[in-house]
Amino acid sequence: MIKEEITKHSIQLFEKKGFSQTSIQDIVDVLDVTKGTFYYYFSSKEQLLMDIHLQYIDNLLSRQQMIFDNTSLTNKEKLEEVILMLIKDIKERGSSGRVFFREIRHLNNMNISKVKEKRNNFRLRIEEVVQEGIKTKEFQSDLPADMIAFGILGVTNYSYNWFNPNGDVSPEELAEIFSKMILNGIVSG
Amino acid sequence: MIKEEITKHSIQLFEKKGFSQTSIQDIVDVLDVTKGTFYYYFSSKEQLLMDIHLQYIDNLLSRQQMIFDNTSLTNKEKLEEVILMLIKDIKERGSSGRVFFREIRHLNNMNISKVKEKRNNFRLRIEEVVQEGIKTKEFQSDLPADMIAFGILGVTNYSYNWFNPNGDVSPEELAEIFSKMILNGIVSG
Repeated sequence: MIKEEITKHSIQLFEKKGFSQTSIQDIVDVLDVTKGTFYYYFSSKEQLLMDIHLQYIDNLLSRQQMIFDNTSLTNKEKLEEVILMLIKDIKERGSSGRVFFREIRHLNNMNISKVKEKRNNFRLRIEEVVQEGIKTKEFQSDLPADMIAFGILGVTNYSYNWFNPNGDVSPEELAEIFSKMILNGIVSG
Repeated sequence: MIKEEITKHSIQLFEKKGFSQTSIQDIVDVLDVTKGTFYYYFSSKEQLLMDIHLQYIDNLLSRQQMIFDNTSLTNKEKLEEVILMLIKDIKERGSSGRVFFREIRHLNNMNISKVKEKRNNFRLRIEEVVQEGIKTKEFQSDLPADMIAFGILGVTNYSYNWFNPNGDVSPEELAEIFSKMILNGIVSG
């Protein structure tokens, strides 16, 4: 409970002030607990950051797996579902996402490798779905699946920088717009 | 000459170590000049960062304007050209781009507003081309041009994080792949 509170408020501080500019003192001040409490749960600020990274990516990986394991979905539908998942997440986990994208360089090298491997897995699974869709002729045959996976993640991940999920366009609407753009293109006819 | 050298090496240091972690001492050490030399050209590390931001975005805005002012291009071709410009830039100006995207929060509020206004203009001009293409029926009529502009910038800007311009896929090839994805979509038929 306290651990979750520390994590939650740290994400907000890291997002606002940046990881380097946020001290353990800042974190315990917000929660009105002692540094001793912090060190009971985390060995360092860096370990807390690693926890945030792992929670974020492990959650995405397991939800992605549920979508991709669903054999009733076409490859096109699988991509639509994963785009929807990522855009809807901006509302619930936007701060985590922004800390995840921005602060990874503050982890130690071993932890960076661990997180990057998971990030790569997330992307490679999207690539596999594109590849599979090419095989089943759902998608065009001349597509480089690896580059398309990067393109899809570009559209979704960049949204964490600008999209206001409480604005005029809902997450569901944005996901549909981006799915259409990626799947059908913007050219008419 | 020295000013350009300071800027160039600062961009590399800011990219590698981050703006906060780079001191003026680090910068002058690389160039083997004194702090006095630094302060002759820049009033502060923050002013140097602002210079980097302005050079980066002003260059993009003027090249974008040349493309969009070219009346012999269709709106589709204008989008292709701007995607090509941004992807090719990763080779020449990738470090500047990454510093631009990542370190803006270290500017003061007035400078953040100035830079954001220019960034917004870059995006709004893309939105206008999409809007114009909808009018001329080059693009589908039900597109929300504002969201599509964000989608296009997502694909291109995210590439600054992962694309190796000296790898197997050339910048020209990647730009063509992304143009096809955005313009025609990935679904076959």
